[in-house]
Amino acid sequence: MSIDVKRTVEELRAATQILVGEGILDGFGHVSTRHPEQPDRYFMLLRNVDGPAAEARVLELDADSNPIGPGDVRPSIERFIHGEIYRQRPDVLAVVHTHAPPLIPFGVCNVALRPLYHMCGFLEDGASVFDIRKEHGTTNMLVTSYELGQSLAASLGRRAMVLMRGHGATVVGTSLKEAVFRSVYATLNAQLQTVAMQLGQPTFLNTGEAKLADELHHAVLDRPWEYWVKKHG
Amino acid sequence: MSIDVKRTVEELRAATQILVGEGILDGFGHVSTRHPEQPDRYFMLLRNVDGPAAEARVLELDADSNPIGPGDVRPSIERFIHGEIYRQRPDVLAVVHTHAPPLIPFGVCNVALRPLYHMCGFLEDGASVFDIRKEHGTTNMLVTSYELGQSLAASLGRRAMVLMRGHGATVVGTSLKEAVFRSVYATLNAQLQTVAMQLGQPTFLNTGEAKLADELHHAVLDRPWEYWVKKHG
Amino acid sequence: MSIDVKRTVEELRAATQILVGEGILDGFGHVSTRHPEQPDRYFMLLRNVDGPAAEARVLELDADSNPIGPGDVRPSIERFIHGEIYRQRPDVLAVVHTHAPPLIPFGVCNVALRPLYHMCGFLEDGASVFDIRKEHGTTNMLVTSYELGQSLAASLGRRAMVLMRGHGATVVGTSLKEAVFRSVYATLNAQLQTVAMQLGQPTFLNTGEAKLADELHHAVLDRPWEYWVKKHG
Amino acid sequence: MSIDVKRTVEELRAATQILVGEGILDGFGHVSTRHPEQPDRYFMLLRNVDGPAAEARVLELDADSNPIGPGDVRPSIERFIHGEIYRQRPDVLAVVHTHAPPLIPFGVCNVALRPLYHMCGFLEDGASVFDIRKEHGTTNMLVTSYELGQSLAASLGRRAMVLMRGHGATVVGTSLKEAVFRSVYATLNAQLQTVAMQLGQPTFLNTGEAKLADELHHAVLDRPWEYWVKKHG
Repeated sequence: MSIDVKRTVEELRAATQILVGEGILDGFGHVSTRHPEQPDRYFMLLRNVDGPAAEARVLELDADSNPIGPGDVRPSIERFIHGEIYRQRPDVLAVVHTHAPPLIPFGVCNVALRPLYHMCGFLEDGASVFDIRKEHGTTNMLVTSYELGQSLAASLGRRAMVLMRGHGATVVGTSLKEAVFRSVYATLNAQLQTVAMQLGQPTFLNTGEAKLADELHHAVLDRPWEYWVKKHG
Repeated sequence: MSIDVKRTVEELRAATQILVGEGILDGFGHVSTRHPEQPDRYFMLLRNVDGPAAEARVLELDADSNPIGPGDVRPSIERFIHGEIYRQRPDVLAVVHTHAPPLIPFGVCNVALRPLYHMCGFLEDGASVFDIRKEHGTTNMLVTSYELGQSLAASLGRRAMVLMRGHGATVVGTSLKEAVFRSVYATLNAQLQTVAMQLGQPTFLNTGEAKLADELHHAVLDRPWEYWVKKHG
Repeated sequence: MSIDVKRTVEELRAATQILVGEGILDGFGHVSTRHPEQPDRYFMLLRNVDGPAAEARVLELDADSNPIGPGDVRPSIERFIHGEIYRQRPDVLAVVHTHAPPLIPFGVCNVALRPLYHMCGFLEDGASVFDIRKEHGTTNMLVTSYELGQSLAASLGRRAMVLMRGHGATVVGTSLKEAVFRSVYATLNAQLQTVAMQLGQPTFLNTGEAKLADELHHAVLDRPWEYWVKKHG
Repeated sequence: MSIDVKRTVEELRAATQILVGEGILDGFGHVSTRHPEQPDRYFMLLRNVDGPAAEARVLELDADSNPIGPGDVRPSIERFIHGEIYRQRPDVLAVVHTHAPPLIPFGVCNVALRPLYHMCGFLEDGASVFDIRKEHGTTNMLVTSYELGQSLAASLGRRAMVLMRGHGATVVGTSLKEAVFRSVYATLNAQLQTVAMQLGQPTFLNTGEAKLADELHHAVLDRPWEYWVKKHG
């Protein structure tokens, strides 16, 4: 294992701890990151809470989301979320699939999730809503095939985030730090927007504010990351 | 004590820890499981938080909810919830009686709890509402007799869950893992539905989605269980 | 110090730990209990979080809320809440004065706090609302004199609880265990009623249900107490 | 380092721990305090969660928010919030800049944050709302220059608090203890007001009550501080 890969896997473990600690992942949901040296591969953990032999639980998957190496592991049946987004979005280096509760209502109601918090400029293009029923009829709601993964990736488009009706959301970033940041703060924006809409008509960030705020926060991603590592690590 | 019984009792302890940790049980409420070898008996713990001599606190009850063995224990006065459901529902192997706060409003208001979260396909048949006053007049609200237990079990019918007006809910499963899973996620569905109904008209799972999602999750119950055991164990 | 007094003071410490742990007390608010041998005296702690020399921080007060013993302690300026209730309500053996957030909205809005949760039969007589401004004009909102304490006690009347507008609430019991139980569950009832009123028209306990449920829970106060002691002790 | 400076820096560390523990600061946001001996200088910490070598992370800034001493530190790009308030408000000895979630909706909706909780008499003059867009057009939402800092300080005026649209709030005090107290309880007031406005028309403190309650609490700031230090320290 090269130094780059080792560092990437360590960051993936830290990302998982942060996302569990911040309530973005529980027993379900997962975070992945693109292989730093073989961009048609990616890494996931087998579980969100690991035991002592944690090192053994990293999974490497190929471009078609098949696990590399000995065949006795059972990768997530929803790994196609990750694989198909990596295929369609070369700019994406990390993917978080979450069931975070505050996001769910925005996936099932006809209300757009929009940025009212300065951390969430990345929401300016909006979060698309992937209603699996529209294109694929009645399913078990999960993204368990190439076809469903491609459909989800198409719904995501060039955006930072796609809400999944009755299920959760998928958030992407150009780094694990960015994907974690976006997951945590999109969830907070959802909470705040819910409250604000009870109080009155919220003022959202305008397009320029969103763009500039996103650029700013993209440059300081180490700050919250270090905070979360110390809090949950 | 056979290996099967020992394993069952250990799982019952783990279930209690999880349910306390996830806010489904506090000092009140209880979880039980059918005896693995004598299906007309079931096990409960005497308390939800145990001391060091934890092993002593398991209670075995017969088909009429009478404690087996030396007569110096005081079983829950609401054990008839469990006993009468086990009698009427041979398919049920575990019962959770909870006072989880997010469920209470759905028991006292004329709003049906329905599945909008893909974890909650088991709610497709709806949660019936047991209003003890309707059939039994003014009571102390608790299910403290065979008659009341039978009445609650009848209200539950073939469903996964019955809400109890002004009191809580009772959730069943074909295993402890399933009953725990359903208790945690039904409570989350209640929270999400409350928020979603403030935002607009939520889209619920349709019948096919609910059925398929429930089948899927039934097959992966180990995953959240292992997560919760590591988190709260 | 007699065995009875010692036991009472230990119970007072446990009550404080429980109330802090359950979010009923923070740096402000206080719990007291009547002296078990001299019913015209009562005990309070000087602080809600104690250091190692905890034993030194118990305060004994006389019928006029004057501290007994060496004069270098500074008792709470709101001790008249306790003293005047003990004077007017010989049946009361414990008093909790709380700022618990979920109770505040019911003190400032014209909406009655009523029992919809079976734990809260003691709310059947309703929680009166003490608006200090009505009788006493503009004050600093605190109950800092005999006169204000008497006025609060009059507003409480024979009830279990009085809400204090813009300030908090005071809850009484015939034991520390009962006063703690009522504080925790009245706060939960407030949370539940707030949610239920958003969903629709809640069904409350009727008079008979409230009375019977209160009698039942009065008889099983050890159960939640032991749970909370293990959780927060 | 004089004894006064040492004590000030220790208090600043404690304030940070309290504000993190109470959810007022996370990886972002910051608290500062005026230099006790050179009133045209102030102290900030470089991070809200420190490692073992914590002592090294204190930053001293001059009247123009330039860091004193060796030039290899990167002070917060929002330090102008602090510097310009200290310049315009000689009475202010401590400043908290927070992103506390419950405050955000009041910055983006046309609803005044007003005191309904007796801890919050300091809100009697209201919290002004600084909408950076009104005077400065499209920005990245942050206060990253002298000009923006001066504008924020002007919006604050003589008040205790200014809400920042889509961003957070800034709270001032005549001591660290007061600024911490106000930050925590203003956040709670926002939560309570949100709930109360759903229930009905809340009664707020009147002007006299607010003034008297604020004077009272100003005199007892040690009490909650000691509580929080024990809880989070």
